Amino acid sequence: MGVEERRQQLIGVALDLFSRRSPDEVSIDEIASAAGISRPLVYHYFPGKLSLYEAALQRASEDLASRFTEPHEGPLGARLLRVMGRFFDFVDEHGPGFSALMRGGPAVGSTTTNALVDSVRQAAYDQILSHLGVTEASPRLELVVRSWISLAESTALIWLDGRRIPRAELERQLVHDFAALAAVSAAYDEEMAAVLRGILREEPAESPLGELVGRLVALAS
Amino acid sequence: MGVEERRQQLIGVALDLFSRRSPDEVSIDEIASAAGISRPLVYHYFPGKLSLYEAALQRASEDLASRFTEPHEGPLGARLLRVMGRFFDFVDEHGPGFSALMRGGPAVGSTTTNALVDSVRQAAYDQILSHLGVTEASPRLELVVRSWISLAESTALIWLDGRRIPRAELERQLVHDFAALAAVSAAYDEEMAAVLRGILREEPAESPLGELVGRLVALAS
Repeated sequence: MGVEERRQQLIGVALDLFSRRSPDEVSIDEIASAAGISRPLVYHYFPGKLSLYEAALQRASEDLASRFTEPHEGPLGARLLRVMGRFFDFVDEHGPGFSALMRGGPAVGSTTTNALVDSVRQAAYDQILSHLGVTEASPRLELVVRSWISLAESTALIWLDGRRIPRAELERQLVHDFAALAAVSAAYDEEMAAVLRGILREEPAESPLGELVGRLVALAS
Repeated sequence: MGVEERRQQLIGVALDLFSRRSPDEVSIDEIASAAGISRPLVYHYFPGKLSLYEAALQRASEDLASRFTEPHEGPLGARLLRVMGRFFDFVDEHGPGFSALMRGGPAVGSTTTNALVDSVRQAAYDQILSHLGVTEASPRLELVVRSWISLAESTALIWLDGRRIPRAELERQLVHDFAALAAVSAAYDEEMAAVLRGILREEPAESPLGELVGRLVALAS
């Protein structure tokens, strides 16, 4: 194997192990053994476990960010629902590693890992604004989008802790939560009201958001 | 000063410094100087900066958790609004330290600091359940409450980053967000619908939640 090919193989093996268990439980010996090479050879490519962890996290971050890309076609609720499906696929594939990373702590907290997590949040934020057709967000719209992203993270973390609610329900719920947080902000702000009207204008009655409105009206009566 | 008295004074001085700047920018020399004692004397009471940081965080955690306590009287929306006011008081008093802690990283991430943050979240969770009159939360109610707590944290962090929205607006918005997340869950779950009816039953029309419902109805029409 060439140098770059071997590095990429090691990153793949490490990402698999870091995904299935908390990173502080994974040893370099184990990574070497899973890759079928010696421990010194691992150190030849990566100076230590942290640098290998950061390389694996970089690959996972790019993978997750790529799943946010969605064609600008059809109702917004359905687009967001498809992205939520791919987000939960990712969370499912990387469960223990995702939890350890997002819950923080000495094993995973470094300037580089924080920057990678922030880059994925920023990719999610940019995608949502582009689907809303907004280039410059007002402070209130920025708050709704960024706080909803953190809600999606915490919902995924709570799901991983026992998986007591079917993930399909949570994917739909997060789409609804986005509309609900936007509606709360729109109740007091004309600019947000215009954004919300733009979201709802294209929603057919049988879409996730159309269905929510119907159910809330039924609940209120 | 006695030993315990001196320890408590040092914790107070350190908490003040750790609140006003990111903890990695605060040195033991600075803490010693602010406390009017020598650097070796600081080390006599605390083995290093991390243990002093953890002691300061412990005091801040107890302070914040105590602010969640609210009499079980009157409409739930108004109770939560008063707690949000005290939460933002705390965030305002400890801004840079709160941001550094909640954004994670090597300067603040330790098993002890994570456990302290979790203890405050748990105190918030327990208080909310007690005000809802619930002793054993269903998985869906637990998700709504815990994910709303993370929403309150992220809203406070976004507020600290530039303070571009008046905090009073965000305090009210978080009360509304709680009702909105509960309503989304209630739209698909009978148990959550019963909880939501319990919340809204006692709300007068002029309360924060009553006002929201009026505004949303106006927005929808």
